[in-house]
Amino acid sequence: MTVTLVPKVNSDRLNRSIAQLAEIGKLPGGGVSRVAFTQADLLARQLVQSWMIEAGMAVRIDAAGNIIGRYAGLKEGAALATGSYIDTVPVAGRYDGVLGVLAGIEVVKILNENNLRLEHPIEVIVFTDEECSVIGCKAMAGNINSDPEDYRRRDGTPIQACLELIDGNWSQIATAKRNSEEIAAFVELHVEQASILESTGTEIGIVKGIVGQYRYGVTVTGRPNHAGATPMNMRQDALVAAVQMVLTVNRIGTETPGEQVATVGYLKVSPNAVNIVPGRVEFALDLRDLSQTHLDESIGQMKREFKAIATATETQVEIAQKLHVLPTIAAPQIQKTIRQVCQELGMSYTYLASRAGHDAQEIGRFTEMGMIFVPSRCGISHAEDEYTSPEQCTQGANVLLQTFLKLDWFYK
Amino acid sequence: MTVTLVPKVNSDRLNRSIAQLAEIGKLPGGGVSRVAFTQADLLARQLVQSWMIEAGMAVRIDAAGNIIGRYAGLKEGAALATGSYIDTVPVAGRYDGVLGVLAGIEVVKILNENNLRLEHPIEVIVFTDEECSVIGCKAMAGNINSDPEDYRRRDGTPIQACLELIDGNWSQIATAKRNSEEIAAFVELHVEQASILESTGTEIGIVKGIVGQYRYGVTVTGRPNHAGATPMNMRQDALVAAVQMVLTVNRIGTETPGEQVATVGYLKVSPNAVNIVPGRVEFALDLRDLSQTHLDESIGQMKREFKAIATATETQVEIAQKLHVLPTIAAPQIQKTIRQVCQELGMSYTYLASRAGHDAQEIGRFTEMGMIFVPSRCGISHAEDEYTSPEQCTQGANVLLQTFLKLDWFYK
Repeated sequence: MTVTLVPKVNSDRLNRSIAQLAEIGKLPGGGVSRVAFTQADLLARQLVQSWMIEAGMAVRIDAAGNIIGRYAGLKEGAALATGSYIDTVPVAGRYDGVLGVLAGIEVVKILNENNLRLEHPIEVIVFTDEECSVIGCKAMAGNINSDPEDYRRRDGTPIQACLELIDGNWSQIATAKRNSEEIAAFVELHVEQASILESTGTEIGIVKGIVGQYRYGVTVTGRPNHAGATPMNMRQDALVAAVQMVLTVNRIGTETPGEQVATVGYLKVSPNAVNIVPGRVEFALDLRDLSQTHLDESIGQMKREFKAIATATETQVEIAQKLHVLPTIAAPQIQKTIRQVCQELGMSYTYLASRAGHDAQEIGRFTEMGMIFVPSRCGISHAEDEYTSPEQCTQGANVLLQTFLKLDWFYK
Repeated sequence: MTVTLVPKVNSDRLNRSIAQLAEIGKLPGGGVSRVAFTQADLLARQLVQSWMIEAGMAVRIDAAGNIIGRYAGLKEGAALATGSYIDTVPVAGRYDGVLGVLAGIEVVKILNENNLRLEHPIEVIVFTDEECSVIGCKAMAGNINSDPEDYRRRDGTPIQACLELIDGNWSQIATAKRNSEEIAAFVELHVEQASILESTGTEIGIVKGIVGQYRYGVTVTGRPNHAGATPMNMRQDALVAAVQMVLTVNRIGTETPGEQVATVGYLKVSPNAVNIVPGRVEFALDLRDLSQTHLDESIGQMKREFKAIATATETQVEIAQKLHVLPTIAAPQIQKTIRQVCQELGMSYTYLASRAGHDAQEIGRFTEMGMIFVPSRCGISHAEDEYTSPEQCTQGANVLLQTFLKLDWFYK
């Protein structure tokens, strides 16, 4: 087998499959509503399994309901895996998640119709409920809490009942756990969901890693007072303190070298009346970075500055951690391989951090992980007008195919 | 007649009258609820009129419902006037407004029981509905809009019906207007409703003037975006812009020399979600100053800085004026007289601006105006635990009495 014999993916077939899947749960505005465990999700899972079988894969469902299509390799043993998800948020576009799954199936179809097999088996995985409980990839990484209540649906349905609908089994969920001897590498193709690629006119994003995240709730307490009668030097204005903290967050987010983003998206003033000096402000701080060390340094610096601001403004500040997700770094070898593929295919590329979560974030906790991004128009996602062109979808799938071919040599 | 013959006010009687009036509309926590035009307000008006008559005053009600008690002078002509109001916000203390009215009546009682008359008639005025429509003092200043809908009560009652309840007459309201030939000077005693006097251990506040006020609505528009996926340099974060504007307001309020206060008490973020870069922020700016020139300079400076911040943050800012009240300066002669009285009585005093509105603000638009402040515990007002001690009330009334005696010589 030589690489040059391998054709490109079938662009028409890939894009037809994306359109066909978008018929299930179709919305009037061109988008899709296919929340996990709904009838639409079940139908879509059936369709995708039939395509896997057409592509020559053996299909199994693990205890977490993950659909695992396996295309045998010349040798048995650790697989090269790809995949993503086909469930959606309640109002979604047609590319988020779907592209990664259908491009994986298309890659296998092309190999299969050309009677080609890699040394490694190839797995295409549809992870369960990426958009809400994230239970599929977490189960595969062995990161499931023992309490099923932690995964209960918003509509009240217990997770056990949900998993039964898709042939999963909560009581056996520990068996969904896998390791690097089973999966040598995992490469996920995904739409960017941001606009770096589009705004720089770049075709392929090589993901350096998926950021870790801290979320904090910050409460600043001053003293509410009459805005007319209270002289400036007798105020303990919680908003005047809080706005300085927001600027601190923005400054550290902007000026520190690195991949971080730092955001105050939520801020609430009390009593929030035109003529009352604010007595209390609550705000939420969201900080994401590829480097855990850097995350810790940034949050440490913010906390120190918040306390200094509180002292200077005679207010009190409380800082409570609400969320912590560890970053996952993409394997250097996979990043390098994607770059070589882009160069050989003549595609423009750039390195970037993924600041949204992905199944690859969990899978990367037990094996080597990489991600390929293609552009999203205007960075829009989780909306009906999410759009990646057929050519861009095809380019992503071709990069995935060539990356698998190269990794097949590297990991053997 | 010589000043030295005049006794001090009767402290017991003054404070008994305050307690007695507080029985009407009494609340369980020691406060009072006596909203204008309610049964409690009507009862209180009857009681106060009876006290005016006891003090030797002729009482009339003008078309705005203002109660005007007049104690004849040795000469007819322009009066020296005092007064305030006895209506309250829905949950109030017992001193705000009431002290000014009852101290005025006590001053006249003392003169009357000592068979003393000034050259000038003395008027004690109870202004109608200071806490809501402010219709009494505005009518006396001739600043009433022709549309009665502008004064409709929050419960829907037309102002015409309200005025009828208190023997006023909307159709004749223009007749309530007065001028400086009728009132040579107006001196209002009031609780401070702030804590400058208490915190500095000062007995009497000599009001330099009542601040003017601007109120603006400011809207900052950026672009909402995913807080994870949007790099710092691709954001148009409306909150990052708005917080710089809040700091500008605070800096100009704090650092500019003068009596101004500048407040952002209301601020609303949209969409206000933890993981979304704010797309829009609305906030309210309240600016008060004794000097209209200074007010205009400050607001001009703020507008320039807001626009520069918007440009730097790639956001848009809209600034809309919501309110403008002109400042009223206390007559220098009245300020000087109050100071001399404090010195002669051995009371500590300080000059200060009134940053809350008062009837004197309107009366000062057509005649010479002054105000005497006594301390409010912790600056609390419009609350049941509003408190000024009996001694402090008496001190204020004595300053009012002596001020009238001196002004009687000055204005003749």
